[in-house]
Amino acid sequence: MSRTRHFIFVRVPEGMPDARCFRLEDAPMPVPGERQVLVRTDYLSIDPYMRRQMSGGHGQYANPLRPGDVMIGRGVGVVTESRHPDFAAGDAVQGEFGWREHVVLSGTGLRKLPSDLSPLSLGLGLIGQSGATAVVGLTDIGRIKTGETVVVSAAAGAVGSAVGQIARILGCRAVGIAGGAEKCRHVVADLGFDACVDYKAGDVASKLAAAAPDGVDIYFDNVGGEILDAVLPLMRQNGRVPICGQISQYNTTERRGLRNVGVLLDKCVMLQGFRIGNHLARRDAALEQLMVWYREGRLKYRETVAVGFEAAPAALVNMLSGGNIGKQVVRLDDAT
Amino acid sequence: MSRTRHFIFVRVPEGMPDARCFRLEDAPMPVPGERQVLVRTDYLSIDPYMRRQMSGGHGQYANPLRPGDVMIGRGVGVVTESRHPDFAAGDAVQGEFGWREHVVLSGTGLRKLPSDLSPLSLGLGLIGQSGATAVVGLTDIGRIKTGETVVVSAAAGAVGSAVGQIARILGCRAVGIAGGAEKCRHVVADLGFDACVDYKAGDVASKLAAAAPDGVDIYFDNVGGEILDAVLPLMRQNGRVPICGQISQYNTTERRGLRNVGVLLDKCVMLQGFRIGNHLARRDAALEQLMVWYREGRLKYRETVAVGFEAAPAALVNMLSGGNIGKQVVRLDDAT
Repeated sequence: MSRTRHFIFVRVPEGMPDARCFRLEDAPMPVPGERQVLVRTDYLSIDPYMRRQMSGGHGQYANPLRPGDVMIGRGVGVVTESRHPDFAAGDAVQGEFGWREHVVLSGTGLRKLPSDLSPLSLGLGLIGQSGATAVVGLTDIGRIKTGETVVVSAAAGAVGSAVGQIARILGCRAVGIAGGAEKCRHVVADLGFDACVDYKAGDVASKLAAAAPDGVDIYFDNVGGEILDAVLPLMRQNGRVPICGQISQYNTTERRGLRNVGVLLDKCVMLQGFRIGNHLARRDAALEQLMVWYREGRLKYRETVAVGFEAAPAALVNMLSGGNIGKQVVRLDDAT
Repeated sequence: MSRTRHFIFVRVPEGMPDARCFRLEDAPMPVPGERQVLVRTDYLSIDPYMRRQMSGGHGQYANPLRPGDVMIGRGVGVVTESRHPDFAAGDAVQGEFGWREHVVLSGTGLRKLPSDLSPLSLGLGLIGQSGATAVVGLTDIGRIKTGETVVVSAAAGAVGSAVGQIARILGCRAVGIAGGAEKCRHVVADLGFDACVDYKAGDVASKLAAAAPDGVDIYFDNVGGEILDAVLPLMRQNGRVPICGQISQYNTTERRGLRNVGVLLDKCVMLQGFRIGNHLARRDAALEQLMVWYREGRLKYRETVAVGFEAAPAALVNMLSGGNIGKQVVRLDDAT
């Protein structure tokens, strides 16, 4: 094959993005230079942060996408040609591929996956950025201690499902918040959380208070907005709130104010935004630990898989609408 | 003298408290028991947190005042009779006296003041809870590093005036926020801050941006509300916001929402409420360090002194209205 394809980000969405935000383009197959590799993409990672980067630079975040850029995103795949001494053809790797069927990369930031990792898509989710985010958020940011109560929102999502399972492994009570009965069932029955509150059924605050009768030591926040406001009054003294996502706010044009800020002082509570990319020194150890737990059968996972490179825009919309259970990925047609 | 006086908290205020929230009462002079001391109050400390404790338990804070309680508050004074082996008549001490002319205390929580401390009221402010709060907030909570930019609100107040001076001693740029030209002049000309923004003159965000052109590493928040919202977008990556007070919110019946919460994730910013009472292990070292700097002439202070025990309620209202520059205290008539 001498041609390949990629998606260009062409339009800043208002509210929920749709397929018109992207254009599929045909391009010549790239050729690796000295100390570079050519990788065939097998899976693309679909994540909430992507929506934030698509906001046209109106936010406070770094490196916003500009119309005309190739769409960002991590991927896993197989090296098909290597001119880099650390990689050989056939190696399974993970890195910042962007939405491309094939990509030329230098070794920087490219990570070889464990040879027994199957399916490879786990290198994007449970044994990838999502799992590492859960570990670093709970330990480095949240300073988790045995016996505490951990609440996590978007509990059926890629990060949230790891957060609750890891909290349980570390001897804590895990309470999820998710949207809909099926997600809540999955979180408790399949993933082993102690409880899960369906925010779509209303009355979140009192249901959470019942599920966390001693109060909340760590609230791992993936959604922001009203849910964050509902959890804050339940925080215990010296509680911690690692903020990993604000998905409820990404598709709104006017951000909702946080009303229960007084809790921070009254209860000596900490809020801390974080990104796994700022904790690379800890990430590799986190991934090794996750792989150990996974081999021991102590971590479960589910994925929502969209099939075919063309399905990437629809997969993003699906994930932003809460249509996924577990990690949302795109599996390319040639994936092994 | 065989009689003494105290103030009873009699009424939960709506909005700003006034003299009707307190009742002055006459009482027999208390007599110390075994391992207790009798102390004559010289100065009472008047602090923002008092208003929060007067809210009738509607907040999330610990130990709210109830009508009928003796009004809370720290004081400095002199031991007039001791039945405790660690204290002798004539010792200058600081502790939780409440609003009382004389108080019987056990040794717990009672702290002897340095013999060269003059005036004694410094043991409530710069070399007391206010100064220790500044040190712990900047170091333990704010993790201050040389060369950073520190912004502090209520900069002419007891805590704020210490925060900026300590930030300068530690090699940082200090920018204050205060209400009115005279306070701002004092903060820069007398206390040596690099700049001070008058929030009453409007346009806080752009004036702050000009005074902190590289952004803000630490925002030491004493006021909450709109000012916190104005500073958040100026925070640098990995910025820290020690939250020490929310004075703008104490006298309002409806709390204003915080709108720029998205900055926490976009910039990996930390917000942390704290109280010096939860950091007692660090407080004594902080007070020693403050005394060293003070003896070296590196810390300036000003006080607003109300005279006479009867003036305590008016002094509280004055402080809550921003009428003080530096620490607000009440000096009792018999003070040395």
